[in-house]
Amino acid sequence: MIGLGRMGGNMTQRLLAGGHHIVAYDPDEQARLSVVNAGAIEATSIDELVFHLSPPRAVWVMVPAGDVTDETIGTLSAKLTVGDTIIDGGNSNYKDTIRRAADVGDLGLTMLDVGTSGGVWGLTEGYSLMIGGDAEAYSRLEPIFQTLAPGASIGYGHVGPSGAGHFVKMVHNGIEYGMMQAFAEGFELMEAKHDLELDLAQIAHIWRYGSVVRSWLLDLTAAALDEDGSLEGIQAYVEDSGEGRWTVEESIDLAVPIPVIAASLQARFRSRQDSPFGAKLLAAMRNQFGGHSVRKSE
Amino acid sequence: MIGLGRMGGNMTQRLLAGGHHIVAYDPDEQARLSVVNAGAIEATSIDELVFHLSPPRAVWVMVPAGDVTDETIGTLSAKLTVGDTIIDGGNSNYKDTIRRAADVGDLGLTMLDVGTSGGVWGLTEGYSLMIGGDAEAYSRLEPIFQTLAPGASIGYGHVGPSGAGHFVKMVHNGIEYGMMQAFAEGFELMEAKHDLELDLAQIAHIWRYGSVVRSWLLDLTAAALDEDGSLEGIQAYVEDSGEGRWTVEESIDLAVPIPVIAASLQARFRSRQDSPFGAKLLAAMRNQFGGHSVRKSE
Amino acid sequence: MIGLGRMGGNMTQRLLAGGHHIVAYDPDEQARLSVVNAGAIEATSIDELVFHLSPPRAVWVMVPAGDVTDETIGTLSAKLTVGDTIIDGGNSNYKDTIRRAADVGDLGLTMLDVGTSGGVWGLTEGYSLMIGGDAEAYSRLEPIFQTLAPGASIGYGHVGPSGAGHFVKMVHNGIEYGMMQAFAEGFELMEAKHDLELDLAQIAHIWRYGSVVRSWLLDLTAAALDEDGSLEGIQAYVEDSGEGRWTVEESIDLAVPIPVIAASLQARFRSRQDSPFGAKLLAAMRNQFGGHSVRKSE
Amino acid sequence: MIGLGRMGGNMTQRLLAGGHHIVAYDPDEQARLSVVNAGAIEATSIDELVFHLSPPRAVWVMVPAGDVTDETIGTLSAKLTVGDTIIDGGNSNYKDTIRRAADVGDLGLTMLDVGTSGGVWGLTEGYSLMIGGDAEAYSRLEPIFQTLAPGASIGYGHVGPSGAGHFVKMVHNGIEYGMMQAFAEGFELMEAKHDLELDLAQIAHIWRYGSVVRSWLLDLTAAALDEDGSLEGIQAYVEDSGEGRWTVEESIDLAVPIPVIAASLQARFRSRQDSPFGAKLLAAMRNQFGGHSVRKSE
Repeated sequence: MIGLGRMGGNMTQRLLAGGHHIVAYDPDEQARLSVVNAGAIEATSIDELVFHLSPPRAVWVMVPAGDVTDETIGTLSAKLTVGDTIIDGGNSNYKDTIRRAADVGDLGLTMLDVGTSGGVWGLTEGYSLMIGGDAEAYSRLEPIFQTLAPGASIGYGHVGPSGAGHFVKMVHNGIEYGMMQAFAEGFELMEAKHDLELDLAQIAHIWRYGSVVRSWLLDLTAAALDEDGSLEGIQAYVEDSGEGRWTVEESIDLAVPIPVIAASLQARFRSRQDSPFGAKLLAAMRNQFGGHSVRKSE
Repeated sequence: MIGLGRMGGNMTQRLLAGGHHIVAYDPDEQARLSVVNAGAIEATSIDELVFHLSPPRAVWVMVPAGDVTDETIGTLSAKLTVGDTIIDGGNSNYKDTIRRAADVGDLGLTMLDVGTSGGVWGLTEGYSLMIGGDAEAYSRLEPIFQTLAPGASIGYGHVGPSGAGHFVKMVHNGIEYGMMQAFAEGFELMEAKHDLELDLAQIAHIWRYGSVVRSWLLDLTAAALDEDGSLEGIQAYVEDSGEGRWTVEESIDLAVPIPVIAASLQARFRSRQDSPFGAKLLAAMRNQFGGHSVRKSE
Repeated sequence: MIGLGRMGGNMTQRLLAGGHHIVAYDPDEQARLSVVNAGAIEATSIDELVFHLSPPRAVWVMVPAGDVTDETIGTLSAKLTVGDTIIDGGNSNYKDTIRRAADVGDLGLTMLDVGTSGGVWGLTEGYSLMIGGDAEAYSRLEPIFQTLAPGASIGYGHVGPSGAGHFVKMVHNGIEYGMMQAFAEGFELMEAKHDLELDLAQIAHIWRYGSVVRSWLLDLTAAALDEDGSLEGIQAYVEDSGEGRWTVEESIDLAVPIPVIAASLQARFRSRQDSPFGAKLLAAMRNQFGGHSVRKSE
Repeated sequence: MIGLGRMGGNMTQRLLAGGHHIVAYDPDEQARLSVVNAGAIEATSIDELVFHLSPPRAVWVMVPAGDVTDETIGTLSAKLTVGDTIIDGGNSNYKDTIRRAADVGDLGLTMLDVGTSGGVWGLTEGYSLMIGGDAEAYSRLEPIFQTLAPGASIGYGHVGPSGAGHFVKMVHNGIEYGMMQAFAEGFELMEAKHDLELDLAQIAHIWRYGSVVRSWLLDLTAAALDEDGSLEGIQAYVEDSGEGRWTVEESIDLAVPIPVIAASLQARFRSRQDSPFGAKLLAAMRNQFGGHSVRKSE
């Protein structure tokens, strides 16, 4: 395991608890220690990590998408030997994955791309794993996936060639954006209906059982509202982590309309804006044609 | 129980199985028979139904929203006596509910509005019940709700004054539209990515465990794809049943932007169109300014 | 002319300049004086206004949509005689217009509904007039419309029965929302592309000639950017005046998808929000499942 | 002038009519002949074209965006000499333009990118020209732009460094998509309001004068509806030519929400779909949870 951040660290813990032997590397010593304490073998460099493993090796790379992944796989693939397998479990763009799989394939290595969902809860509940790449390597390493998944025969699968795992994960996150936004809109509407004085946490809990919208995201919504029903302590500022953007870009490449996912992404962008130029221009236009008063800035 | 259609019939069955005594009326004899066989007392008219019950009566009305509900509640309220309770479990518009509750309140009756979710699965899994109206009537009738709900203390609750139950149900369905559309878009995108030859049913099943998008709608999606992975036998024609429209109208009244729910409703409208005028006009405009060729109809 | 606000006052001026005789009433004396100075006959009450006109009278009502229009037409229709015509030039909902036309028709009066576009520029450039209602009354009063319109044979027309004028005006405004939002988005995008340091006023002026997007709204955009290229003095707060809402509601009644007009309305709603609940909930959900940090409010 | 298609041919004609001397090349002999007849000097190859021009040369490239532009500029830049200028008047992606300008700059050449709007009407009405790149080359060649533009001092301008012209043109087309869709939605709504029997061509003409939505696109809409008010002869199938896609992608890069432009692009994608998978899935889901009947395909 290379990369012992929130995701990589938790996965290592889950694998160790499942009886697997793990050699773990992260440039941060503290991150290494926490898994060493749980039974992992420490490697202080990629060289050392490779040295500790016997062929056919399997190296799970769990580092931030982008350049870091390129560097890590580049360094790693130079040290591995024919028949070894690199697993990219990060949120890589599937197009990068296809390119990287071809590159490492030229060296006689195989690659698996694992779209991983589950967040911080994966440690205890298991991860949903969408796996692309070499079918033989997948079969050999299935015990790993069985341990990481929520159950021995559920929540994971080989979905296609290299890139397929990350593609499916990308779409998964696009759907996630849409579902989250649907809940956000519904709860906002109920919050805005002041005369009914609805208890949003109560409603979330009612819906958790028997309703059509019951879902894990609703469970989390209920938990968040339990903590702070008014959400007063939280800023209306929503980040995005890339997969939603890629999903919209993919939809453009495929000429498939995805109005809900695109609107969800835009709602996040909008949440980060303060006083956007476009709205100012609308107010200015109305003033021009109708003499409608504009609110002057102070 | 007045109205023994798919919803009313199933709810009667669930109540009977839970040990409640039910007098059941529906104009359709066949519908009556099926619940009589399960232990309900048959009423062949509303008069008879009222006659069989002792005050304080509780009459659950489970008929189509709109005029039928108005007629049924009108007829019924003329026959009930002070202290009796009418329960509207249908998908009524909450504004109608507020009006009706005021009307029956003038007669000394109380009213509860029950937003009911769960579909055909409610019979076995229980219904999610969002209940508005008179708090005392709610307390008296809570055993009914406990039986209908998925569990004795989950999946139901008194959410506010008259109308609140149907308001919350309306928003629930708006969210449902958004979630469904999010899944539809994601699966359509995967289906359109022909070169990966993804198995959509497999992916749905993987996501059911451990993923962020796990939900009952995903379970149903997996079931639908198990039956027919290509959905070839199904027309791309999607109905709507009113609550989504009301949700969008409510958002306009409250000036709350709900882009995802609105887009979901529009996607359904669009699914019913064949050769819409607007798209023809776009093609005609492009031809006018750019000399872009249009496809001629045959 | 009843109602001498910005629109009614300017229209009276334009009609007087065109050689028409006008009796003008407004409760505000100052408003009356300004048109009396331009040649109108002053009426200090509706009674007096009716008294000054000879049958068949034509009374143009230019008051705010809603209750004021109902009251004015109610008062007025009680004083008019068979064959007289009431013209509602305001932004009434077309459904109200159909109702009112039936009511005044019962009294033997005719009604015309005039959707009026042109804003403060109508005084000098003429108004675009979409006229519904009684065809005979339309023909009799065509000279009025010819004077108000930009030219003797352009910019006005009888578009259908009562309500048609206001329906067409409603749709006009829906389109207007969409066009304005399209410009707002494009200019915001250019403003956000900091490295190109684009001069937005210059670009607006370039587009005014020869481009596909040339339009009156672009002329106004250029004028607004000439005044203040950064729009720093203007708040990003955009009102709406009703027709956009009605257009979306009508689209729901007709089950016609209008994504752009609906999104334009929502963008205005959003411009008035500060820290919306839905965005807070999204941030809270992300924190729940991914441990993503939220920005705490201060 | 390299490239004598619809755009390049017309621009050559307009330049010749304006007194400019043009050497014209196109692989198609017929295309060459039509401009030679109007006074252009024929070149049967790029070599010949370069030979006919004296330094500092200005070569306008008007070929399809993408590979053809790369090849043409590559071939051309190898034959030009220091101080010559290449003008790319096509619909290139601005990122490609920035790259190409750097490449030709390394050879001592300058480049101008000209976003050109006006369509087939540019020949007679002039083109709107948004010009990026070397400021000195722009000044030297301004007489060309003055002739192509609608007037000697309107409709063209130097908007920024290399890429700026194509960036501004990209955004222009994004706005164009939004405006077109706004009109399409409005007219579709009026067409769907059957009981009013509206004459859409008449309404378009009324709006052309005095209304807020008056615009060139409305003029074209009126012309299209004059030809065929029902648009029966036209398929509801709408192409896109790339700039709209780039605009949405740019908005993602800049994290700027552009709901209207994105929805306009999606409406075009949707117009090309017949029986989309997503809508089938929605119908299948409704059937799963509610027992709602689906329409079976035949």
